[in-house]
Amino acid sequence: MKLYTFFRSSASYRVRIALNLKGLAYEQVPIHLRRAGGEQFVSSYKAINPQALVPALEDDRRILTQSLAIIEYLEERFPKPPLLPADPADRALVRSMALIVACEIHPIQNLRVLVYLKNNLQQSDEDLNRWACHWIDLGLSALDQTVTAGPTRGKFCFGDMPTLADICLVPQLANARRFGCDLSVYPKLLQIETACAALSAFADAAPEKQPDAE
Amino acid sequence: MKLYTFFRSSASYRVRIALNLKGLAYEQVPIHLRRAGGEQFVSSYKAINPQALVPALEDDRRILTQSLAIIEYLEERFPKPPLLPADPADRALVRSMALIVACEIHPIQNLRVLVYLKNNLQQSDEDLNRWACHWIDLGLSALDQTVTAGPTRGKFCFGDMPTLADICLVPQLANARRFGCDLSVYPKLLQIETACAALSAFADAAPEKQPDAE
Repeated sequence: MKLYTFFRSSASYRVRIALNLKGLAYEQVPIHLRRAGGEQFVSSYKAINPQALVPALEDDRRILTQSLAIIEYLEERFPKPPLLPADPADRALVRSMALIVACEIHPIQNLRVLVYLKNNLQQSDEDLNRWACHWIDLGLSALDQTVTAGPTRGKFCFGDMPTLADICLVPQLANARRFGCDLSVYPKLLQIETACAALSAFADAAPEKQPDAE
Repeated sequence: MKLYTFFRSSASYRVRIALNLKGLAYEQVPIHLRRAGGEQFVSSYKAINPQALVPALEDDRRILTQSLAIIEYLEERFPKPPLLPADPADRALVRSMALIVACEIHPIQNLRVLVYLKNNLQQSDEDLNRWACHWIDLGLSALDQTVTAGPTRGKFCFGDMPTLADICLVPQLANARRFGCDLSVYPKLLQIETACAALSAFADAAPEKQPDAE
Protein backbone atom coordinates (compact mmCIF):
# COMPACT_ATOMS: atom_id res chain seq x y z
CA MET A 1 0.00 0.00 0.00
CA LYS A 2 1.09 3.54 -0.75
CA LEU A 3 -0.02 6.51 1.36
CA TYR A 4 0.08 10.02 -0.08
CA THR A 5 0.58 12.03 3.06
CA PHE A 6 1.84 15.18 4.75
CA PHE A 7 3.43 14.88 8.18
CA ARG A 8 1.37 17.68 9.68
CA SER A 9 -1.99 16.88 8.04
CA SER A 10 -4.24 15.57 10.75
CA ALA A 11 -6.32 13.55 8.27
CA SER A 12 -3.09 11.80 7.15
CA TYR A 13 -2.19 11.29 10.81
CA ARG A 14 -5.52 9.47 11.35
CA VAL A 15 -4.81 7.04 8.52
CA ARG A 16 -1.24 6.41 9.73
CA ILE A 17 -2.60 5.45 13.16
CA ALA A 18 -5.20 3.12 11.60
CA LEU A 19 -2.61 1.42 9.37
CA ASN A 20 -0.32 0.96 12.38
CA LEU A 21 -3.13 -0.41 14.58
CA LYS A 22 -3.94 -2.93 11.84
CA GLY A 23 -0.23 -3.82 11.57
CA LEU A 24 -0.14 -3.00 7.85
CA ALA A 25 3.06 -2.00 6.06
CA TYR A 26 2.85 1.00 3.75
CA GLU A 27 5.08 3.25 1.69
CA GLN A 28 4.81 7.00 2.33
CA VAL A 29 4.71 9.46 -0.58
CA PRO A 30 5.02 12.95 0.93
CA ILE A 31 2.90 15.73 -0.61
CA HIS A 32 4.07 19.03 0.87
CA LEU A 33 1.01 21.24 1.44
CA ARG A 34 2.98 24.43 2.04
CA ARG A 35 5.89 24.17 -0.40
CA ALA A 36 5.85 25.98 -3.77
CA GLY A 37 2.20 26.98 -3.51
CA GLY A 38 1.20 23.48 -2.38
CA GLU A 39 2.26 20.22 -4.00
CA GLN A 40 -1.34 19.01 -3.69
CA PHE A 41 -2.28 21.39 -6.52
CA VAL A 42 0.29 19.98 -8.96
CA SER A 43 -1.44 18.21 -11.87
CA SER A 44 0.31 14.89 -11.24
CA TYR A 45 -1.22 14.77 -7.75
CA LYS A 46 -4.60 16.09 -8.86
CA ALA A 47 -4.70 13.15 -11.29
CA ILE A 48 -4.40 10.90 -8.23
CA ASN A 49 -6.80 12.90 -6.06
CA PRO A 50 -8.92 15.56 -7.82
CA GLN A 51 -9.82 16.93 -4.39
CA ALA A 52 -6.20 18.16 -4.01
CA LEU A 53 -6.22 16.93 -0.44
CA VAL A 54 -4.19 14.42 1.52
CA PRO A 55 -4.33 11.62 2.41
CA ALA A 56 -4.93 9.25 -0.49
CA LEU A 57 -4.27 5.52 -0.19
CA GLU A 58 -3.33 3.32 -3.11
CA ASP A 59 -4.19 -0.34 -2.59
CA ASP A 60 -4.68 -3.02 -5.20
CA ARG A 61 -4.50 -0.40 -7.97
CA ARG A 62 -7.39 1.62 -6.54
CA ILE A 63 -6.92 5.11 -5.13
CA LEU A 64 -8.99 5.79 -2.02
CA THR A 65 -9.55 9.26 -0.58
CA GLN A 66 -11.08 10.88 2.51
CA SER A 67 -9.53 9.62 5.73
CA LEU A 68 -12.71 8.18 7.25
CA ALA A 69 -13.59 6.32 4.05
CA ILE A 70 -10.04 4.92 3.97
CA ILE A 71 -10.26 3.78 7.59
CA GLU A 72 -13.66 2.12 7.07
CA TYR A 73 -12.09 0.34 4.07
CA LEU A 74 -9.19 -0.89 6.21
CA GLU A 75 -11.71 -2.06 8.82
CA GLU A 76 -13.63 -4.07 6.21
CA ARG A 77 -10.56 -5.56 4.49
CA PHE A 78 -8.55 -6.24 7.67
CA PRO A 79 -11.08 -6.71 10.49
CA LYS A 80 -8.53 -7.52 13.23
CA PRO A 81 -8.02 -5.73 15.54
CA PRO A 82 -11.40 -4.00 15.18
CA LEU A 83 -11.53 -0.20 15.22
CA LEU A 84 -15.27 -0.19 15.91
CA PRO A 85 -17.26 -2.09 18.57
CA ALA A 86 -19.63 -4.91 17.55
CA ASP A 87 -23.07 -3.55 18.49
CA PRO A 88 -24.67 -1.27 15.84
CA ALA A 89 -25.69 1.45 18.32
CA ASP A 90 -22.21 1.39 19.89
CA ARG A 91 -20.67 1.60 16.42
CA ALA A 92 -22.90 4.61 15.72
CA LEU A 93 -21.72 6.22 18.96
CA VAL A 94 -18.04 5.74 18.10
CA ARG A 95 -18.61 6.97 14.56
CA SER A 96 -20.44 10.03 15.91
CA MET A 97 -17.45 10.84 18.14
CA ALA A 98 -15.16 10.58 15.11
CA LEU A 99 -17.51 12.77 13.07
CA ILE A 100 -17.58 15.47 15.75
CA VAL A 101 -13.88 15.89 14.97
CA ALA A 102 -14.05 15.18 11.23
CA CYS A 103 -17.16 17.28 10.45
CA GLU A 104 -17.57 19.80 13.24
CA ILE A 105 -14.00 20.83 14.02
CA HIS A 106 -11.32 19.95 11.51
CA PRO A 107 -12.86 21.28 8.24
CA ILE A 108 -13.48 24.71 9.77
CA GLN A 109 -9.90 25.15 11.06
CA ASN A 110 -8.23 23.42 8.14
CA LEU A 111 -5.38 25.08 6.24
CA ARG A 112 -7.38 26.17 3.22
CA VAL A 113 -10.06 27.87 5.32
CA LEU A 114 -7.40 29.75 7.29
CA VAL A 115 -5.69 30.81 4.03
CA TYR A 116 -9.03 32.14 2.76
CA LEU A 117 -9.69 34.02 6.00
CA LYS A 118 -6.23 35.59 5.83
CA ASN A 119 -6.05 36.40 2.11
CA ASN A 120 -9.68 37.17 1.28
CA LEU A 121 -11.06 38.48 4.58
CA GLN A 122 -7.84 40.15 5.78
CA GLN A 123 -7.80 38.40 9.14
CA SER A 124 -4.65 38.63 11.28
CA ASP A 125 -2.75 35.61 12.59
CA GLU A 126 -4.24 36.32 16.00
CA ASP A 127 -7.75 36.33 14.50
CA LEU A 128 -7.00 32.99 12.84
CA ASN A 129 -5.96 31.43 16.13
CA ARG A 130 -9.10 32.80 17.79
CA TRP A 131 -11.21 31.37 14.95
CA ALA A 132 -9.54 27.95 15.19
CA CYS A 133 -9.82 27.77 18.97
CA HIS A 134 -13.49 28.78 18.87
CA TRP A 135 -14.45 25.78 16.70
CA ILE A 136 -12.03 23.41 18.39
CA ASP A 137 -13.46 24.35 21.78
CA LEU A 138 -17.06 23.90 20.65
CA GLY A 139 -16.29 20.47 19.19
CA LEU A 140 -14.05 19.16 21.97
CA SER A 141 -16.61 20.24 24.54
CA ALA A 142 -19.30 18.21 22.70
CA LEU A 143 -16.91 15.27 22.35
CA ASP A 144 -15.97 15.44 26.02
CA GLN A 145 -19.66 15.32 27.03
CA THR A 146 -20.35 12.49 24.58
CA VAL A 147 -17.44 10.42 25.92
CA THR A 148 -18.40 11.10 29.54
CA ALA A 149 -22.09 10.29 28.93
CA GLY A 150 -21.27 7.10 26.99
CA PRO A 151 -22.34 3.67 28.22
CA THR A 152 -18.78 2.48 28.92
CA ARG A 153 -16.01 3.90 31.05
CA GLY A 154 -12.53 3.00 30.01
CA LYS A 155 -9.07 4.16 29.03
CA PHE A 156 -10.18 5.28 25.57
CA CYS A 157 -13.11 7.21 24.08
CA PHE A 158 -15.13 4.00 24.11
CA GLY A 159 -14.05 1.24 26.45
CA ASP A 160 -10.57 -0.18 26.81
CA MET A 161 -9.53 -0.59 23.18
CA PRO A 162 -8.67 2.23 20.80
CA THR A 163 -11.32 2.96 18.17
CA LEU A 164 -11.97 5.29 15.27
CA ALA A 165 -12.88 7.94 17.86
CA ASP A 166 -9.37 7.93 19.39
CA ILE A 167 -7.85 7.91 15.91
CA CYS A 168 -9.61 11.22 15.24
CA LEU A 169 -9.15 12.71 18.71
CA VAL A 170 -5.35 12.47 18.98
CA PRO A 171 -4.50 14.41 15.78
CA GLN A 172 -7.13 17.01 16.70
CA LEU A 173 -5.52 17.62 20.08
CA ALA A 174 -2.15 18.10 18.35
CA ASN A 175 -3.79 20.65 16.06
CA ALA A 176 -5.38 22.42 19.01
CA ARG A 177 -1.97 22.90 20.61
CA ARG A 178 -0.59 24.46 17.42
CA PHE A 179 -3.29 27.13 17.73
CA GLY A 180 -2.63 27.64 21.43
CA CYS A 181 -6.05 26.42 22.61
CA ASP A 182 -6.54 25.75 26.31
CA LEU A 183 -6.95 21.98 26.69
CA SER A 184 -6.78 21.88 30.49
CA VAL A 185 -10.58 22.01 30.64
CA TYR A 186 -10.74 18.54 29.04
CA PRO A 187 -8.95 16.30 31.56
CA LYS A 188 -10.74 13.16 30.35
CA LEU A 189 -9.68 13.78 26.73
CA LEU A 190 -6.10 14.41 27.87
CA GLN A 191 -6.12 11.12 29.83
CA ILE A 192 -7.26 9.33 26.68
CA GLU A 193 -4.48 11.02 24.72
CA THR A 194 -1.94 9.77 27.27
CA ALA A 195 -3.31 6.21 26.97
CA CYS A 196 -3.04 6.45 23.18
CA ALA A 197 0.51 7.85 23.25
CA ALA A 198 1.59 4.74 25.19
CA LEU A 199 0.72 2.61 22.15
CA SER A 200 3.36 2.43 19.42
CA ALA A 201 0.65 2.57 16.72
CA PHE A 202 -0.15 6.10 17.86
CA ALA A 203 3.38 7.17 18.84
CA ASP A 204 4.87 6.05 15.51
CA ALA A 205 2.20 7.98 13.57
CA ALA A 206 3.02 11.32 15.22
CA PRO A 207 3.91 14.16 12.81
CA GLU A 208 7.44 14.62 14.18
CA LYS A 209 8.26 10.94 13.53
CA GLN A 210 7.45 11.07 9.82
CA PRO A 211 10.11 11.05 7.07
CA ASP A 212 8.86 14.40 5.72
CA ALA A 213 8.82 16.12 9.14
CA GLU A 214 10.56 19.48 9.31
CA MET B 1 -38.08 5.67 15.79
CA LYS B 2 -38.06 9.35 16.61
CA LEU B 3 -36.13 11.88 14.54
CA TYR B 4 -35.18 15.25 16.03
CA THR B 5 -35.07 17.35 12.91
CA PHE B 6 -35.33 20.76 11.27
CA PHE B 7 -36.92 20.99 7.84
CA ARG B 8 -34.12 23.07 6.37
CA SER B 9 -31.16 21.30 8.00
CA SER B 10 -29.40 19.41 5.25
CA ALA B 11 -28.02 16.84 7.71
CA SER B 12 -31.62 16.11 8.82
CA TYR B 13 -32.63 15.95 5.15
CA ARG B 14 -29.99 13.23 4.57
CA VAL B 15 -31.38 11.08 7.38
CA ARG B 16 -34.97 11.56 6.17
CA ILE B 17 -33.95 10.28 2.72
CA ALA B 18 -32.17 7.26 4.23
CA LEU B 19 -35.14 6.37 6.46
CA ASN B 20 -37.45 6.65 3.44
CA LEU B 21 -35.19 4.54 1.21
CA LYS B 22 -35.16 1.85 3.92
CA GLY B 23 -38.96 2.09 4.18
CA LEU B 24 -38.80 2.86 7.91
CA ALA B 25 -41.59 4.74 9.72
CA TYR B 26 -40.50 7.50 12.09
CA GLU B 27 -41.96 10.29 14.17
CA GLN B 28 -40.58 13.80 13.59
CA VAL B 29 -39.76 16.08 16.52
CA PRO B 30 -39.03 19.52 15.06
CA ILE B 31 -36.20 21.53 16.63
CA HIS B 32 -36.32 25.05 15.20
CA LEU B 33 -32.74 26.25 14.65
CA ARG B 34 -33.67 29.89 14.10
CA ARG B 35 -36.51 30.49 16.54
CA ALA B 36 -35.94 32.16 19.94
CA GLY B 37 -32.16 32.01 19.68
CA GLY B 38 -32.25 28.39 18.51
CA GLU B 39 -34.24 25.57 20.10
CA GLN B 40 -31.15 23.36 19.76
CA PHE B 41 -29.56 25.32 22.61
CA VAL B 42 -32.43 24.70 25.04
CA SER B 43 -31.32 22.47 27.92
CA SER B 44 -33.97 19.81 27.25
CA TYR B 45 -32.54 19.29 23.74
CA LYS B 46 -28.92 19.54 24.86
CA ALA B 47 -29.70 16.67 27.25
CA ILE B 48 -30.63 14.66 24.16
CA ASN B 49 -27.76 15.89 22.02
CA PRO B 50 -24.96 17.77 23.81
CA GLN B 51 -23.69 18.86 20.39
CA ALA B 52 -26.77 21.10 20.05
CA LEU B 53 -27.11 19.98 16.45
CA VAL B 54 -29.81 18.21 14.49
CA PRO B 55 -30.50 15.50 13.55
CA ALA B 56 -30.62 13.01 16.40
CA LEU B 57 -32.36 9.66 16.05
CA GLU B 58 -33.91 7.80 18.95
CA ASP B 59 -34.17 4.05 18.38
CA ASP B 60 -34.51 1.31 20.94
CA ARG B 61 -33.90 3.83 23.77
CA ARG B 62 -30.54 4.92 22.34
CA ILE B 63 -29.96 8.42 20.99
CA LEU B 64 -27.78 8.49 17.88
CA THR B 65 -26.22 11.66 16.49
CA GLN B 66 -24.27 12.81 13.43
CA SER B 67 -26.12 12.11 10.18
CA LEU B 68 -23.50 9.81 8.63
CA ALA B 69 -23.22 7.72 11.81
CA ILE B 70 -27.02 7.44 11.88
CA ILE B 71 -27.15 6.34 8.24
CA GLU B 72 -24.38 3.74 8.73
CA TYR B 73 -26.42 2.45 11.70
CA LEU B 74 -29.55 2.17 9.56
CA GLU B 75 -27.48 0.35 6.93
CA GLU B 76 -26.25 -2.18 9.51
CA ARG B 77 -29.62 -2.71 11.21
CA PHE B 78 -31.73 -2.73 8.04
CA PRO B 79 -29.46 -3.88 5.20
CA LYS B 80 -32.13 -3.86 2.45
CA PRO B 81 -32.08 -1.97 0.17
CA PRO B 82 -28.33 -1.32 0.54
CA LEU B 83 -27.09 2.28 0.56
CA LEU B 84 -23.52 1.17 -0.13
CA PRO B 85 -22.18 -1.19 -2.83
CA ALA B 86 -20.75 -4.60 -1.85
CA ASP B 87 -17.05 -4.32 -2.79
CA PRO B 88 -14.87 -2.64 -0.11
CA ALA B 89 -13.08 -0.31 -2.57
CA ASP B 90 -16.41 0.69 -4.12
CA ARG B 91 -17.82 1.29 -0.65
CA ALA B 92 -14.82 3.50 0.10
CA LEU B 93 -15.45 5.42 -3.13
CA VAL B 94 -19.11 6.04 -2.27
CA ARG B 95 -18.21 7.01 1.30
CA SER B 96 -15.54 9.41 -0.01
CA MET B 97 -18.16 11.09 -2.23
CA ALA B 98 -20.43 11.48 0.79
CA LEU B 99 -17.54 12.85 2.87
CA ILE B 100 -16.66 15.45 0.22
CA VAL B 101 -20.07 16.92 1.02
CA ALA B 102 -20.13 16.15 4.74
CA CYS B 103 -16.55 17.22 5.54
CA GLU B 104 -15.39 19.55 2.78
CA ILE B 105 -18.50 21.60 2.03
CA HIS B 106 -21.32 21.52 4.53
CA PRO B 107 -19.48 22.28 7.81
CA ILE B 108 -17.87 25.40 6.32
CA GLN B 109 -21.13 26.91 5.06
CA ASN B 110 -23.25 25.69 7.95
CA LEU B 111 -25.50 28.10 9.87
CA ARG B 112 -23.26 28.51 12.90
CA VAL B 113 -20.20 29.37 10.83
CA LEU B 114 -22.19 31.98 8.90
CA VAL B 115 -23.50 33.45 12.16
CA TYR B 116 -19.93 33.73 13.46
CA LEU B 117 -18.73 35.37 10.23
CA LYS B 118 -21.56 37.89 10.44
CA ASN B 119 -21.52 38.66 14.15
CA ASN B 120 -17.82 38.31 14.99
CA LEU B 121 -16.10 39.20 11.72
CA GLN B 122 -18.69 41.76 10.54
CA GLN B 123 -19.22 40.15 7.16
CA SER B 124 -22.16 41.34 5.02
CA ASP B 125 -24.87 39.01 3.68
CA GLU B 126 -23.22 39.30 0.27
CA ASP B 127 -19.88 38.25 1.78
CA LEU B 128 -21.59 35.25 3.41
CA ASN B 129 -23.03 34.13 0.08
CA ARG B 130 -19.63 34.52 -1.57
CA TRP B 131 -18.04 32.50 1.25
CA ALA B 132 -20.63 29.73 0.97
CA CYS B 133 -20.42 29.53 -2.82
CA HIS B 134 -16.61 29.40 -2.70
CA TRP B 135 -16.60 26.22 -0.59
CA ILE B 136 -19.60 24.70 -2.31
CA ASP B 137 -17.97 25.22 -5.68
CA LEU B 138 -14.66 23.71 -4.56
CA GLY B 139 -16.39 20.64 -3.15
CA LEU B 140 -18.93 20.10 -5.94
CA SER B 141 -16.16 20.40 -8.49
CA ALA B 142 -14.20 17.65 -6.69
CA LEU B 143 -17.34 15.54 -6.37
CA ASP B 144 -18.19 16.03 -10.06
CA GLN B 145 -14.70 14.85 -11.06
CA THR B 146 -14.89 11.91 -8.65
CA VAL B 147 -18.27 10.80 -10.02
CA THR B 148 -17.14 11.21 -13.63
CA ALA B 149 -13.87 9.35 -13.05
CA GLY B 150 -15.60 6.53 -11.15
CA PRO B 151 -15.57 2.95 -12.42
CA THR B 152 -19.32 2.88 -13.13
CA ARG B 153 -21.55 5.10 -15.24
CA GLY B 154 -25.14 5.23 -14.19
CA LYS B 155 -28.11 7.34 -13.20
CA PHE B 156 -26.73 8.04 -9.74
CA CYS B 157 -23.36 9.00 -8.22
CA PHE B 158 -22.37 5.33 -8.27
CA GLY B 159 -24.23 3.04 -10.67
CA ASP B 160 -27.97 2.72 -11.04
CA MET B 161 -29.09 2.59 -7.42
CA PRO B 162 -29.10 5.51 -4.99
CA THR B 163 -26.36 5.38 -2.36
CA LEU B 164 -25.05 7.37 0.57
CA ALA B 165 -23.39 9.68 -1.98
CA ASP B 166 -26.72 10.73 -3.50
CA ILE B 167 -28.20 11.11 -0.02
CA CYS B 168 -25.53 13.74 0.69
CA LEU B 169 -25.54 15.36 -2.76
CA VAL B 170 -29.24 16.25 -3.02
CA PRO B 171 -29.50 18.31 0.21
CA GLN B 172 -26.20 20.03 -0.67
CA LEU B 173 -27.54 21.13 -4.06
CA ALA B 174 -30.64 22.56 -2.31
CA ASN B 175 -28.31 24.48 0.01
CA ALA B 176 -26.26 25.73 -2.93
CA ARG B 177 -29.37 27.24 -4.52
CA ARG B 178 -30.23 29.09 -1.31
CA PHE B 179 -26.86 30.85 -1.58
CA GLY B 180 -27.33 31.58 -5.28
CA CYS B 181 -24.42 29.42 -6.46
CA ASP B 182 -24.14 28.67 -10.19
CA LEU B 183 -24.86 24.96 -10.61
CA SER B 184 -25.05 24.96 -14.42
CA VAL B 185 -21.37 23.96 -14.56
CA TYR B 186 -22.25 20.58 -13.00
CA PRO B 187 -24.63 19.01 -15.56
CA LYS B 188 -23.84 15.46 -14.39
CA LEU B 189 -24.69 16.31 -10.76
CA LEU B 190 -27.92 17.99 -11.89
CA GLN B 191 -28.87 14.87 -13.89
CA ILE B 192 -28.32 12.78 -10.77
CA GLU B 193 -30.48 15.20 -8.78
CA THR B 194 -33.29 14.79 -11.35
CA ALA B 195 -33.01 10.99 -11.10
CA CYS B 196 -33.22 11.24 -7.30
CA ALA B 197 -36.19 13.63 -7.36
CA ALA B 198 -38.13 11.01 -9.33
CA LEU B 199 -37.95 8.67 -6.32
CA SER B 200 -40.53 9.23 -3.59
CA ALA B 201 -37.91 8.54 -0.89
CA PHE B 202 -36.08 11.69 -1.97
CA ALA B 203 -39.14 13.76 -2.93
CA ASP B 204 -40.90 13.09 0.39
CA ALA B 205 -37.79 14.12 2.35
CA ALA B 206 -37.57 17.57 0.76
CA PRO B 207 -37.60 20.51 3.19
CA GLU B 208 -40.83 22.02 1.85
CA LYS B 209 -42.71 18.74 2.45
CA GLN B 210 -41.90 18.57 6.16
CA PRO B 211 -44.44 19.31 8.90
CA ASP B 212 -42.25 22.11 10.30
CA ALA B 213 -41.70 23.78 6.90
CA GLU B 214 -42.37 27.51 6.78
